[in-house]
Amino acid sequence: MKNTALKINQETLPLSADEFENRLREIGKERYHDNCRFHHLLHSGKLNKGQVQAWALNRYYYQINISIKDSALMSRIKDPELRRVWIKRILDHDGRKDDEGGIERWYKLTDGLDMDRDYVKSTKGILPATRFSVDAYVSFVKEKSLLEGVTSSLTELFAPKIHKERIVGMLENYDFINDQTMAYFKKRVDQATDDADFVLNYAIKNAHTRQEQEDVCEALKFKTDVLWVMQDALYHSYINGHVPPGAFKPEDFNDRYTED
Amino acid sequence: MKNTALKINQETLPLSADEFENRLREIGKERYHDNCRFHHLLHSGKLNKGQVQAWALNRYYYQINISIKDSALMSRIKDPELRRVWIKRILDHDGRKDDEGGIERWYKLTDGLDMDRDYVKSTKGILPATRFSVDAYVSFVKEKSLLEGVTSSLTELFAPKIHKERIVGMLENYDFINDQTMAYFKKRVDQATDDADFVLNYAIKNAHTRQEQEDVCEALKFKTDVLWVMQDALYHSYINGHVPPGAFKPEDFNDRYTED
Repeated sequence: MKNTALKINQETLPLSADEFENRLREIGKERYHDNCRFHHLLHSGKLNKGQVQAWALNRYYYQINISIKDSALMSRIKDPELRRVWIKRILDHDGRKDDEGGIERWYKLTDGLDMDRDYVKSTKGILPATRFSVDAYVSFVKEKSLLEGVTSSLTELFAPKIHKERIVGMLENYDFINDQTMAYFKKRVDQATDDADFVLNYAIKNAHTRQEQEDVCEALKFKTDVLWVMQDALYHSYINGHVPPGAFKPEDFNDRYTED
Repeated sequence: MKNTALKINQETLPLSADEFENRLREIGKERYHDNCRFHHLLHSGKLNKGQVQAWALNRYYYQINISIKDSALMSRIKDPELRRVWIKRILDHDGRKDDEGGIERWYKLTDGLDMDRDYVKSTKGILPATRFSVDAYVSFVKEKSLLEGVTSSLTELFAPKIHKERIVGMLENYDFINDQTMAYFKKRVDQATDDADFVLNYAIKNAHTRQEQEDVCEALKFKTDVLWVMQDALYHSYINGHVPPGAFKPEDFNDRYTED
């Protein structure tokens, strides 16, 4: 009996702040999309221009939905102080004027890759898997608890590392990439670090019970799934060559890098 | 001027019933998931048991969401006559008693494949891409017009053919498949034919304008995307071997059929 009681306690007692943070970092280590092969190929210069275009085009759909996701989240926050912090994300993304902000910087990337802006904006050529996973992220934030909605952005803990690798790797390895096209990621290194610190502290402060801590872990896992599905779909379509009907097919598709 | 006016008319005039039906059948021909390589492998006996398990497990998530999708749709129907027709789908799926219905027949398949029912029911091992695409289907029916919600099930026009191929192919090619495990598909051949005829007539009767006809085409395309994403994710994970963290990994994974 003593052993059973102990076991129940260990499974139901809240983790300490350190244990909790370690759990979250372990999840990132195993499940963050820097583990995906497509990223290694992207950063190491293996891809051709069309494959980089496909990545930028699909990721664009993620970019334009971040402020929608954050607006949905803000509509559920009752505390003005938290809204005051969170609104910074929307301003960072949308900019305070026409010609700045994260979405605008993303066009610098797609412009630099010689993609037609109207085509990019139409999102017509994105992979259905991209659409479904990004839409799932927006729905998650609408439907789950505020704690889960806020902490689903904990993937930002792992973003600065991948951004730095990307900037160095892509600038070095592709002649169609320059400082201006990489402006988005340069800006995000600092922004994501600040945002992630805030959300990690929020999680530690607001997940009181073991169940709430588990919910936060599941929210982070969910978000890693969103990013992972996008990468897998890019790999399947643009490395292995199974582009689904209606999706973007680069001009240089036949000369793409493959691993078959 | 005359030419321009003619062009506008051709793009905005409603299609005839025949033209409209042909458009829908063309979409199926190009985009229905019988075009996916995974299905050819499944039906021709190329897969090992673990790969068939992975397919049955993931497709289960689709199965259990069909009645949820149809309930959401029914909540939006104002006409009792249409609800009276539509409710048949829920009864077909859920059964009128514990031990019948489409979901119950799906367990015959997973039981026959020696899968633990509790594990199947937990849906813990499904691919995130499966979850996101099926959830997108449920959301679509909640958010789009009733016409689009109803006609997103037009994929049933193309289902009887694939069901028949599947029954013959799987019975012939796998020693772990028998009449009982294939009960779901045997029943669906007739059910899907009746349901599809109804929805095709509904589309022709209720899509009056060209825009409404285009909306129906887009709804069908959307639904083909849902099914296609599921197939692509199965292929990427269980043929090419990129099983994402947390997803089902069959015991015989290392002896699986591959095409590398």
